[in-house]
Amino acid sequence: MDFDAMFNAQLGALKEEGNYRIFAELERRCGQFPRAKSHDDDAPDEVTVWCSNDYLGMGQHPVVRQAMKDAIDSCGTGAGGTRNISGTNHHHVALERELADLHGKEDALLFTSGYVSNWAALSTLGSRLPDAVILSDALNHASMIEGIRHSRAQKVIWKHNDPEDLDRKLAALPANAPKIVAFESVYSMDGDICPMAEIVEVAEKHGAMTYLDEVHAVGLYGPRGGGLSEREGLADRITLIEGTLGKAFGCMGGYIAGSPALCDFIRSFASGFIFTTALPPAVAAAAQASIAHLKVSQIERAQQRRQVARMRAMLDARGIPHMENPSHIIPVPIKDPVKCRMLADILMRDYGIYVQPINYPTVPKGTERLRFTPGPLHTDADIDRVVEALDVLWKQCAIAHAVA
Amino acid sequence: MDFDAMFNAQLGALKEEGNYRIFAELERRCGQFPRAKSHDDDAPDEVTVWCSNDYLGMGQHPVVRQAMKDAIDSCGTGAGGTRNISGTNHHHVALERELADLHGKEDALLFTSGYVSNWAALSTLGSRLPDAVILSDALNHASMIEGIRHSRAQKVIWKHNDPEDLDRKLAALPANAPKIVAFESVYSMDGDICPMAEIVEVAEKHGAMTYLDEVHAVGLYGPRGGGLSEREGLADRITLIEGTLGKAFGCMGGYIAGSPALCDFIRSFASGFIFTTALPPAVAAAAQASIAHLKVSQIERAQQRRQVARMRAMLDARGIPHMENPSHIIPVPIKDPVKCRMLADILMRDYGIYVQPINYPTVPKGTERLRFTPGPLHTDADIDRVVEALDVLWKQCAIAHAVA
Ligand SMILES: Cc1ncc(COP(=O)(O)O)c(C=O)c1O
Ligand SMILES: Cc1ncc(COP(=O)(O)O)c(C=O)c1O
Repeated sequence: MDFDAMFNAQLGALKEEGNYRIFAELERRCGQFPRAKSHDDDAPDEVTVWCSNDYLGMGQHPVVRQAMKDAIDSCGTGAGGTRNISGTNHHHVALERELADLHGKEDALLFTSGYVSNWAALSTLGSRLPDAVILSDALNHASMIEGIRHSRAQKVIWKHNDPEDLDRKLAALPANAPKIVAFESVYSMDGDICPMAEIVEVAEKHGAMTYLDEVHAVGLYGPRGGGLSEREGLADRITLIEGTLGKAFGCMGGYIAGSPALCDFIRSFASGFIFTTALPPAVAAAAQASIAHLKVSQIERAQQRRQVARMRAMLDARGIPHMENPSHIIPVPIKDPVKCRMLADILMRDYGIYVQPINYPTVPKGTERLRFTPGPLHTDADIDRVVEALDVLWKQCAIAHAVA
Repeated sequence: MDFDAMFNAQLGALKEEGNYRIFAELERRCGQFPRAKSHDDDAPDEVTVWCSNDYLGMGQHPVVRQAMKDAIDSCGTGAGGTRNISGTNHHHVALERELADLHGKEDALLFTSGYVSNWAALSTLGSRLPDAVILSDALNHASMIEGIRHSRAQKVIWKHNDPEDLDRKLAALPANAPKIVAFESVYSMDGDICPMAEIVEVAEKHGAMTYLDEVHAVGLYGPRGGGLSEREGLADRITLIEGTLGKAFGCMGGYIAGSPALCDFIRSFASGFIFTTALPPAVAAAAQASIAHLKVSQIERAQQRRQVARMRAMLDARGIPHMENPSHIIPVPIKDPVKCRMLADILMRDYGIYVQPINYPTVPKGTERLRFTPGPLHTDADIDRVVEALDVLWKQCAIAHAVA
C-alpha cells in the first residue's frame, strides 16, 4: 500500500486551499528580543517578531535565564523519569506551590504543556465522573476540544461568551448530572474577554463546576499576574484554573490550580500526567522565577498596555481595520488564506516584519488574519514602522481593487 | 454538587487497593548522579536512585549541560510560540535533522514529549487515513493506546510479541484497508525485546505500515544509539520510528522519524503538534548535543551493559528472583501492591536506596514489581549494597512466611 501517496494527496488539498503551513525559521537573539535572526532565504537577516506569545519578553529576562542555568548546574538537564518514577524534583514541588499561591488556590499540578494540561484534565474529569456533561464555549481551544472528545462524556456547546445561552443549556440538563462549564478568559485569536462574573453566576446557580483556561491571561492581567480571574476577584469562585508557562512566563509547561482533592484526582488518574517524563527541573526553576518576578513587577504589564494602545490608535488613524477587543491582541482581518500569506510574505521580505498568517485550522475559514502582539520591548519606532508598512500595503490593495 | 466528595471517593478506593501514589521528592545532584538529595522526612538526606530512566546519566553530562546553557544565553528560555507562530527556532530544525540522520530517515518531527508524539501521530494516522485499522501489541504503552483510542479507528490487539498472531489478524482484514502495526522495541516494564525481523516480515507481507516505539532503546542500542532497529539493520524497513529525548538522551521531548511525506502529514494535521508551544530552543540544543555524543561514544553503553550483567549475576547468586530479559531493565517481581510499596519504603528508609514501587496502572494488577535500571554511573559498590539489602529483606520475608 502506497502510504506516501495517501499522505501527499491530503497535503496537496491543503496546498490548493492555501492552508499549507510554512514555518519561519528564526533564531531568537537573547537581549535583543523582539529582534531575531532569520534563516529563511526570502527574509532579511534580521527581522522583528510581531506575533510572539512571549508577550512580555520574559523568555530573555536575566532573572529567568539565571534561574534556569543555576538549576542546570545543580540538577542537570532532564528530570530522568515520570513524576512517579524518580522524576519529581524539588523544583517541581516548589513551582506547584508558587502556582497555587498565584491563583489563591490550595493546590496546583504541573504538566508538560498547557495543551496536555487541558487535554488530560478534561478527559479525566469527563470520563471518570459518572454521567458528566461538559458545557464547552463554542470557541474553546483545540486542547480543550480534544480533551472533551477523548473523555467521551456528553458535550454541549454553548454560544461563545453568551451566559444566557449557557443558562438555558444548563437548565435543560438533569439536575443530578455533574456539569463542567469549560471556557477561556482571553480568546487568543479574537482577543475578546469572557463575561466571567455572569458565567460564574450561571454555573453556580446550576451547581456546575467551572473550568477556566487562562493561558493568554496569566502573567498579563491582575495585580500579581494571576489572570482575569484575579483582576475580577473571581478566582475563589472558579473550580479549576488552567494556565501555561510557555507564553507570558516565557518558558514551557502547563498547569491546573484548584482544591487538593481536585489536583490529587487528576494527578492520580490522568494518563497524560502519569505516563510521561516530567518537565526538566531547570524549566520549572525558570518558570518559578518568572512568576515570582511578575507577581511584584508592574512595569512589563504597564509598558505592554501602552504599546498596545499606541498601535491601536495609529491603526485607527490610518483607517487600517482591526478587531476591537479589550485585550493585548490586535487581529487585523484579511479573510482569505492566500492573501493573508501574501501580505505576511511581503511584510517579511520587504520590511523584515515577521507576522505569521493565521489561517485554518487555527481560525475558521473566511476569518484569516494577521495577529499582532505588541509587547513592552517593541519600541515606538517599531510600531511606527509596522503601521507605516501596513498603510503602504493597504493603499496598494485599494488601488488594485480600484483598477480591478 | 460536591465535586470534592466525588474526587475523594475515587481516591479512597485507590488508597484501599494500595495503588495510591506518593511521589518521592528528590533533588538531583549534578555531577553526583545517581546520588540525589531527598526532601522526604522518612528518607536519609542522600539517596541513590535506582529507577531513573536517565539511563546513561546524560542529564548531567558536561557537553549536554553546556549546550543548554549556551542556547539559553543566545536564545533565551522559551520558544515563545507554537511551531507555526514564531516558535520554530534554528535549534529545532537542526535537531530534526540530527534525528533523521540518527535513524537513517529522510525526515523527523519534534514534539513536546514522547507521550505527545505517540498520541498525536497515532491519532492523526488513525483518524485521517480512511478505513484505517491499527494493529496494536497487547502491551503497548499508554500513550499509544490513548492515541489509537482518540483516532476512533478500528483497533485490533495482537498477542504481545507474537508475529504469528499478528499474521492471522492481518490476514483477516480487508486487503484494501490501510493497516498500521504499532509496537515497541524494548517494553519498559518487563524489559523484553520484540522479534522485530519477524514482525516487519509479516507487516510487509500484508502491505501494512510499521509504527515502532523505540523510547526505551534510543541512545542505548545500535552502534550509534539508533535503537534496536539500528542494531538489527531494520530501520529502513520500519515506516515510522518514534522516540523520546527524555530518557537515555537526558532531556525532554519526543519525535517521529520517517519519510518526508509522512512527517509533513503529521506536521500539517496533528492537533497535538500544531496547537502547543514548541520545546525551548535550549532543550533542543541540549538534546542534539546528547544525541551527537552518543552517536560516537560507546563507553556509556558498554559500562551500562557491564553493570546490568553484574547486578543480574549477583541477584542470581543470592537467589533473588528477577524477570529474565535481554535488555537493561531488571524487574524484581513482588506481585502485590502493598508489599511492593512496603519493600520500597524499607529500602529507602533503612538503606537510602530509592526504587519506586511499580503498581497498577503502570503494570497489570498482580504483577507489581521493583524495577531497577543500573547505569554506567552506578559503582560496583552501589550494586553490592543494593543486592545485599535485597538479600536481607528476602531472608526476612522467608522467615515471615515460615512462621506465618
Ligand atoms: C487557549 C489556549 N489554551 C491552551 C494552549 C496550549 O498551551 P501550551 O502552548 O502551553 O501547550 C494554547 C496555545 O498554545 C491556547 O491558546
Ligand atoms: C514505551 C513508552 N513510550 C512513550 C513514553 C513517553 O515518553 P515521554 O516520557 O517522552 O513522554 C514512555 C514513557 O514515558 C514509554 O515508556
